[in-house]
Amino acid sequence: MARTLAVIGDRWTLLILRESFLRVRRFDDFQDRLGIGRPILADRLQKLVANFVLTKMAYQENPTRYEYRLTPKGRDLYPVIMSIVHWGDVHLAGKKGRPVLHEHASCGHVFDPVMRCSECEATLEPRDVRVLPGPGMRSDKRLPTEKVTSERGQTRSPTKQARQT
Amino acid sequence: MARTLAVIGDRWTLLILRESFLRVRRFDDFQDRLGIGRPILADRLQKLVANFVLTKMAYQENPTRYEYRLTPKGRDLYPVIMSIVHWGDVHLAGKKGRPVLHEHASCGHVFDPVMRCSECEATLEPRDVRVLPGPGMRSDKRLPTEKVTSERGQTRSPTKQARQT
Repeated sequence: MARTLAVIGDRWTLLILRESFLRVRRFDDFQDRLGIGRPILADRLQKLVANFVLTKMAYQENPTRYEYRLTPKGRDLYPVIMSIVHWGDVHLAGKKGRPVLHEHASCGHVFDPVMRCSECEATLEPRDVRVLPGPGMRSDKRLPTEKVTSERGQTRSPTKQARQT
Repeated sequence: MARTLAVIGDRWTLLILRESFLRVRRFDDFQDRLGIGRPILADRLQKLVANFVLTKMAYQENPTRYEYRLTPKGRDLYPVIMSIVHWGDVHLAGKKGRPVLHEHASCGHVFDPVMRCSECEATLEPRDVRVLPGPGMRSDKRLPTEKVTSERGQTRSPTKQARQT
């Protein structure tokens, strides 16, 4: 997760990506809509291009001007952006309600994003999820589940620990 | 989204929340696992408590010691954290594979999180989603969809613009 946040874990970067999903593509349009300083915007766009999240395409010559478009890797950030927006809609919207609604063209309804299990399709609840070490776990890392004795000397059950709350 | 990112849009904050979902609750445990400086950790925990994402509960007296637990508002961040982790698993995992696997206790399978439409259950693709102004949209804000003429003088179709790519 730390590696991922090195790529996208910056407030401006996430706001830029939100605009990209709203089909904003040009430097001046990002700047107008976000009220972001040009050097910061240039820096964040350059980093997103370097990380293959956005791609820079010339749309005009003399002078050459570029558009910034989401790559397939960038489009895969849609659940990240949508889940952040949805949490704000539920917990931080003002008295008037949500600033923006999302309509699903395929079914014609205004919808909420719902996160489901790829295997059984149930809505994911943290208490129903167990974490296991994967093949790429670094040897110097451990899951909290593997610590059976706490710093206060109480023995914790690994099974109970493995359940997230 | 800017308001949401004022609460959670900080790299350390997102890492702390990830640990919370792994059932880490105590200051020293957060510190050990994240290798974060104590003043920064104290600041981020205090902000999460002030925003009702975490709650501080005494688990010991003389001296009083506290645990930091997710509130219902905090637990609602699960799709945010899971979608960030999943994107890293797909796009940034090293040669050996994912550092951590997630098992769904309800169905017994290792799973991926999938974001679906609440109305028709289809997997959400950005190109199938249209944004509409909601009741809480500020009068000084506009959607990119409402801009029918670009700064280059080309007329864009509002219908086409309303589709995200």
